[in-house]
Amino acid sequence: MNEFDLVKKFFEPMCLENPDVLQGIGDDGAVIKWLGSSSLVVATDTLVAGVHFPHDMEAAAIGYRSGAVNISDIAAMGAFPKYATLGLTIPGVDEQWLFQFSNGLNEVFSEFGCSLVGGDTTKGPLAVNLTLIGAAEGPCLKRCGCEDGDLVFVSGTLGDARGALELLDSNELNASGKYLRNRFEKPEARVRLGMSLLGHANACIDISDGLLADLKHLCDASEKAIVVDIDKLPISKSLLETFGYERALTYAATGGDDYELAFTVSPRNADHVLRVADWLEQKISIVGEVQEGSGVVFKEGQERRELLETSGYRHF
Amino acid sequence: MNEFDLVKKFFEPMCLENPDVLQGIGDDGAVIKWLGSSSLVVATDTLVAGVHFPHDMEAAAIGYRSGAVNISDIAAMGAFPKYATLGLTIPGVDEQWLFQFSNGLNEVFSEFGCSLVGGDTTKGPLAVNLTLIGAAEGPCLKRCGCEDGDLVFVSGTLGDARGALELLDSNELNASGKYLRNRFEKPEARVRLGMSLLGHANACIDISDGLLADLKHLCDASEKAIVVDIDKLPISKSLLETFGYERALTYAATGGDDYELAFTVSPRNADHVLRVADWLEQKISIVGEVQEGSGVVFKEGQERRELLETSGYRHF
Repeated sequence: MNEFDLVKKFFEPMCLENPDVLQGIGDDGAVIKWLGSSSLVVATDTLVAGVHFPHDMEAAAIGYRSGAVNISDIAAMGAFPKYATLGLTIPGVDEQWLFQFSNGLNEVFSEFGCSLVGGDTTKGPLAVNLTLIGAAEGPCLKRCGCEDGDLVFVSGTLGDARGALELLDSNELNASGKYLRNRFEKPEARVRLGMSLLGHANACIDISDGLLADLKHLCDASEKAIVVDIDKLPISKSLLETFGYERALTYAATGGDDYELAFTVSPRNADHVLRVADWLEQKISIVGEVQEGSGVVFKEGQERRELLETSGYRHF
Repeated sequence: MNEFDLVKKFFEPMCLENPDVLQGIGDDGAVIKWLGSSSLVVATDTLVAGVHFPHDMEAAAIGYRSGAVNISDIAAMGAFPKYATLGLTIPGVDEQWLFQFSNGLNEVFSEFGCSLVGGDTTKGPLAVNLTLIGAAEGPCLKRCGCEDGDLVFVSGTLGDARGALELLDSNELNASGKYLRNRFEKPEARVRLGMSLLGHANACIDISDGLLADLKHLCDASEKAIVVDIDKLPISKSLLETFGYERALTYAATGGDDYELAFTVSPRNADHVLRVADWLEQKISIVGEVQEGSGVVFKEGQERRELLETSGYRHF
């Protein structure tokens, strides 16, 4: 039983019948109609030391990354973050650590205009839980909604964070290594891109578990298949230089933690989306197509290409 | 440095200048003006196994108690709970445990009409983080606002949960022991009472850390003193029978985990508050008075009475 089955079995039934809940459990965030006005979007994420980040990761990076990961969920709904609460569990009071952690979190919150309004600090093994409340100016982006013939886009480059995990023990990093580590420690939440997709994309998700795993979520929610052309996966020069083409490709296709957006767009909206991304100076790439069927298929030219799925992140 | 200092130093500065944040960090919940309509109240709490509840506590009780503790924060603001997100950290997948835990949480959420709309399940040492979003039909109750001459009320009886902690290792409990254990495992969030106090009470807090510690929060926030008449502390028959008068009194005055409300009311509103509580079939008791000065003083008749403060709960 993986996390998705577990949530489906035990926790989805706990969303009471409520016409104000436009989207409950099962997407990047919940969408709530708040007293007839605009939508409120809620997302929560827990990062546990030793599971989601290394025990010895710098406190500022833990703070920044925790914030960015959560803001990314809000971005994937086409919303913008407004308020956050922090549940911080720490083994003891280390003022230096707390100073750096709060600085890192503050950096990313300030960047996105998000206010920390509540928190609870408890003693225990290091873990960071954040709950974000965002707002959306229209119907939110969801995982369901892919249509036959939709083009599949991704933002940025893929696989960098997965590559960084291979370099954790390296003390001396070259420029490429530093670039990759920064991509892991400071993922960029694609809030402006997500907002610009409202009304133009049919489905959206943020890539936390890896492209393969997350496109599967889109397929399952939309009851469609997605065919990905692996030649088109956007790969950074740093990833390519450090690991070579084959490993870079595997990381891009299946490695998690990049927090880029994957979204599907009807061909008639593609030009508009490309223009807006250009205006936002946000790199986006067309990597595949939605088709009838189910599941994700990777192709290289006309050939079906099997890729190891092992690196898609699983909580259990 | 205790939790309160830590939050003040590192996290309070992270609430950006924002006129919509009516109450930021430093109360039981945050209060946000949501797009000109009614207030949104947000509270978060983390319960860690071995810190906030025993490792071997029954899963259903962990679920129920986690929900009730968080709903109590919403109640202390005079609001009612509407939506919740769950950050659950578990060492592994134990379906039986998850079934019972989700049943317990569902029981308390159903009782209060609260929908679970989001969650994140991660692997790690057992911890439960809940964030609740509530709504209030007017200006919320806060910790500040005590006025000279206010009567200090508490709901229910005090010290029962503290007593229950002494009985954790007992396998066979008599009726009183069972009553106390139930008070620990299933605290009753005083939502209806809290809502009825809007506009009538001057300050309110829920008693999580113990009466002494929590009244101190009211005093500090309001820059007033509170004098408590310990003869008037409401003590259950079960607590009295099990521990005798002196220990029962200490538990009532300083033991945490009861999640009753403590609130202050101007004498001219006292009759109204007593009548409403009677209508709600909610026991409330007048236990003291707000005065000029600072800090909490316990009195027995005319004598000042020193009570050990050790049992007031501290996170660090």
